Amino acid sequence: MPSVLQKLRLEYQPTLPEILKDITSLSISPSNHLLTKYSTLESLFPHTYLQPRLSFVKSNSQKHRPLRVGFVFSGGQAAGGHNVATGLFDALKKLNPESQLIGFLDGPKGIIENKYIGITQEILAPYRNQGGFDLIGAGRSKIETKEQFLAASLTVTNLKLDGLVIIGGDDSNTNAALLAEYFVSKEIPTRVIGVPKTIDGDLKNEYIETSFGFDSATKTYSEIIGNTLVDALSAKKYTFFIKLMGRTASHIALECALQTHANLTFIGEEVELQKKTLKDITNEIADLIIDRSNLDKNYGVILIPEGLIEFIPECKILIQELNVLLSPDQPHLKNIESLSSSDKVTYISKHLTHNSQSCLSSIPGNIQIELLLDRDPHGNVQVSKIDTERLFIETVRQELAHRQNNLKTKVKFSPQPLFCGYEGRACLPSNFDSQYCYALGNVAALLMNGGATGYICSIQNLNQPVEKWELSGIPLTSMIHIEERQGKSKPVIKKSLVDLNGKLFKRFCEERSKWRLNDDYINPGPIQFFGPESITEIKTITLMNG
Amino acid sequence: MPSVLQKLRLEYQPTLPEILKDITSLSISPSNHLLTKYSTLESLFPHTYLQPRLSFVKSNSQKHRPLRVGFVFSGGQAAGGHNVATGLFDALKKLNPESQLIGFLDGPKGIIENKYIGITQEILAPYRNQGGFDLIGAGRSKIETKEQFLAASLTVTNLKLDGLVIIGGDDSNTNAALLAEYFVSKEIPTRVIGVPKTIDGDLKNEYIETSFGFDSATKTYSEIIGNTLVDALSAKKYTFFIKLMGRTASHIALECALQTHANLTFIGEEVELQKKTLKDITNEIADLIIDRSNLDKNYGVILIPEGLIEFIPECKILIQELNVLLSPDQPHLKNIESLSSSDKVTYISKHLTHNSQSCLSSIPGNIQIELLLDRDPHGNVQVSKIDTERLFIETVRQELAHRQNNLKTKVKFSPQPLFCGYEGRACLPSNFDSQYCYALGNVAALLMNGGATGYICSIQNLNQPVEKWELSGIPLTSMIHIEERQGKSKPVIKKSLVDLNGKLFKRFCEERSKWRLNDDYINPGPIQFFGPESITEIKTITLMNG
Repeated sequence: MPSVLQKLRLEYQPTLPEILKDITSLSISPSNHLLTKYSTLESLFPHTYLQPRLSFVKSNSQKHRPLRVGFVFSGGQAAGGHNVATGLFDALKKLNPESQLIGFLDGPKGIIENKYIGITQEILAPYRNQGGFDLIGAGRSKIETKEQFLAASLTVTNLKLDGLVIIGGDDSNTNAALLAEYFVSKEIPTRVIGVPKTIDGDLKNEYIETSFGFDSATKTYSEIIGNTLVDALSAKKYTFFIKLMGRTASHIALECALQTHANLTFIGEEVELQKKTLKDITNEIADLIIDRSNLDKNYGVILIPEGLIEFIPECKILIQELNVLLSPDQPHLKNIESLSSSDKVTYISKHLTHNSQSCLSSIPGNIQIELLLDRDPHGNVQVSKIDTERLFIETVRQELAHRQNNLKTKVKFSPQPLFCGYEGRACLPSNFDSQYCYALGNVAALLMNGGATGYICSIQNLNQPVEKWELSGIPLTSMIHIEERQGKSKPVIKKSLVDLNGKLFKRFCEERSKWRLNDDYINPGPIQFFGPESITEIKTITLMNG
Repeated sequence: MPSVLQKLRLEYQPTLPEILKDITSLSISPSNHLLTKYSTLESLFPHTYLQPRLSFVKSNSQKHRPLRVGFVFSGGQAAGGHNVATGLFDALKKLNPESQLIGFLDGPKGIIENKYIGITQEILAPYRNQGGFDLIGAGRSKIETKEQFLAASLTVTNLKLDGLVIIGGDDSNTNAALLAEYFVSKEIPTRVIGVPKTIDGDLKNEYIETSFGFDSATKTYSEIIGNTLVDALSAKKYTFFIKLMGRTASHIALECALQTHANLTFIGEEVELQKKTLKDITNEIADLIIDRSNLDKNYGVILIPEGLIEFIPECKILIQELNVLLSPDQPHLKNIESLSSSDKVTYISKHLTHNSQSCLSSIPGNIQIELLLDRDPHGNVQVSKIDTERLFIETVRQELAHRQNNLKTKVKFSPQPLFCGYEGRACLPSNFDSQYCYALGNVAALLMNGGATGYICSIQNLNQPVEKWELSGIPLTSMIHIEERQGKSKPVIKKSLVDLNGKLFKRFCEERSKWRLNDDYINPGPIQFFGPESITEIKTITLMNG
């Protein structure tokens, strides 16, 4: 049942980039070659490794043959996904009203298992400009094995698909490239096109200025953080430890820091570069709390990226050792089964290296247990489930108690943990994400129509008004390189980490010292869909200055 | 530093109720007597217990003498507080430009310690329509003892205050009544006026249709819950356990349930009436998860009011016993100091009644420790700090594991805890709260100007457009009754609990069975300040139907 706002959003018409206003007149045109730097790619992508960038040029309106296209949501949600679907659908129908769109259910496994629904105007209508991926569901399943590739081939062949649009992050788009290559090599005529999605903002390069969902997610988190800052400043008694989504990169934390001016924000990439320890971070927070306490400010807000633990070198090593020790082929998991919690820790500790022993011992007891017990099916530590914000509350509490004897006055420390997580993935997409995604869907349709395969949809000049956006198709292989993972060479799209030499991080460094003790708080407030453009069309600081 | 939206909100002009458009022409007029039912009040409030309701009538514009008024924010934040201040300031200045307003710092202790700031147009300007209480801070300190009453008298006398406005919840307004009586009895000319504030919505009666802040808080929580519902429906793998603020009453949970249609919502008042046990609630959740799992729905959202634990009779008794056992005048707290966590539990358990022993044993280990250790200065369990959402995740996990043997298929259970708390207290006030509070500030000024004391500001017809709102002053004593608390008679304003025979709860009961298994989710989205009135002027379901 839609809410009042959901209904109003159904009526929203995303502004179109100038060139999309008459798409029947567009054809694709190869521009400069994008030569990949990795010659090893030739063996992996013999048919698709050397393709040109494609742009769109106006010619006379022409007739286009109908297309049958499937699409899938791969991985976690990001606001705007439904608009990729509507943009794709509307563009396909404009190109030829006989075109058909189908949606594979619950992620890539829908392709493997041949589970899908046909998409019609009526089915799509309630999802325009809405959050979530609930139109067809999503999932983290992958198409990786020979059998899975074969199953996917069967599905697209049986369905006579001209094209398959994969809406996903770096892994899913790498997969799209592999699938495109596979289909060409098997002479399957289905083209594969990728769309850059992820709230984490780590699928980013010259041609992908931002992935969709980052804008809405960081605005939703900044709303919550901003409110919390005002709360801290008014009640003057709580120190909020806010964990933010974003595991392998700290773009979200950086953006939210710049949007809100929280007192202290950790950027994983910096922590790694400076080889900070758990103790260093604990000390940094304890210093902040004591310095503020000396100014009679017994409150504050600290932002912690979800993946911080993995950026701390000693913790990363500890986690790696635990992953090996507790893997299903080792006896240890069985051996500790019947032990008490503290005995489990003692047992495992004996099998760790000296450094990891001391790292484990510096972690509070309940988090030690989380590290040992919450494991995924491969036996790996589930880092995203670690309550990092609670971990630091405990270490800081201990550190403050320890330092207390040397301090003149008692430091008041009332910590409050908070996790900004799932609510930012499935929110109503901002106007920016609504427009960006609708245009991305159009680009996917145009690339498909032009016969391209192994491409990702690109929109540049995103910091300009929509009319000035530049659309193109970029060969996925130009973004792929080879990484060694567990002894095997694997093609991957490199995750874009926070650039510690970049303009944005420098700005953060220049400003953050002021944020520590002054309360230079900003409350961005909730996403606004109506009103002056200064608020409805506002974009992330990362996009505008990154 | 204000954000773009904060700046835009500074320009917002709250619509005024018709009668406030020319306040210089208004005078107060006694209407029907409100006879208090509690004759015992006569001894506590000899001078103020029998006062008439006051309404405002138009006469000719007249000159008013300048007033010196102080105000204070008492207790937790609620969105709109700053607008009470601006409404008060603007009205006082309209009545006489020589009038002066001062704000006492950081709650009632500001009055006792004579700490305040003078409020000017310039100081107030950046706070118009903004959230939080950071203009002057707030606090939970109270004016209770003889010495504190004396200190307050000294402050208001030295400052030559004509009036004092206390912006607070039920306790603070009871205090306002006592202070009003005290000042009259001591022939101190300072009048005392209360303003009904609390996000919990439990300061409510015939004349107080809602307390301010409830509207903005429930909208902020419903935004987060709505997003979470969409996330659940898309990823189809998480069960969210969402704890909501609201300790002594479940109005927030009820409102959010009606706004979002979460699968299961507990209402504390119902739990208490039905004498539910921890086990009953655990079973209810486990049943839901299994029933949904049978429909292949391994996801869902459960709303849990913060105070649920205290509504469960067996837990309430356990907490009472712990409060006695672990009070500072008992030896037990000392005795367990050096024991291990599990030994602490064993020790304390021996001193509990049989029922409480078994209740304690049904609580997961880490929460047992929270119960024993997290205590306020009076030795009481800090119920608000108990991670109720995590408690039920653990008990449900155990219950599901227990039942698993009798089930055909394995139930997938991936719980995610979430707390909707502080971010809802200090958000930007909705248009409703902005207007309501601005009008409340006006009413406070008018009552002050009319010489009233011991009154609370009342606005009725709130479910109508602003123009039709009806303003009056209600004698605080008419809302006060005597309760026995720890063997002492205490005057209190009774908290308004969820009325289990009321229209709103009945509607909830009629609809909730559909919400369990169908996904009749609603996503209200973020608060909108611009756009069609259908969204900017939307009010809570509680107010419109309560």
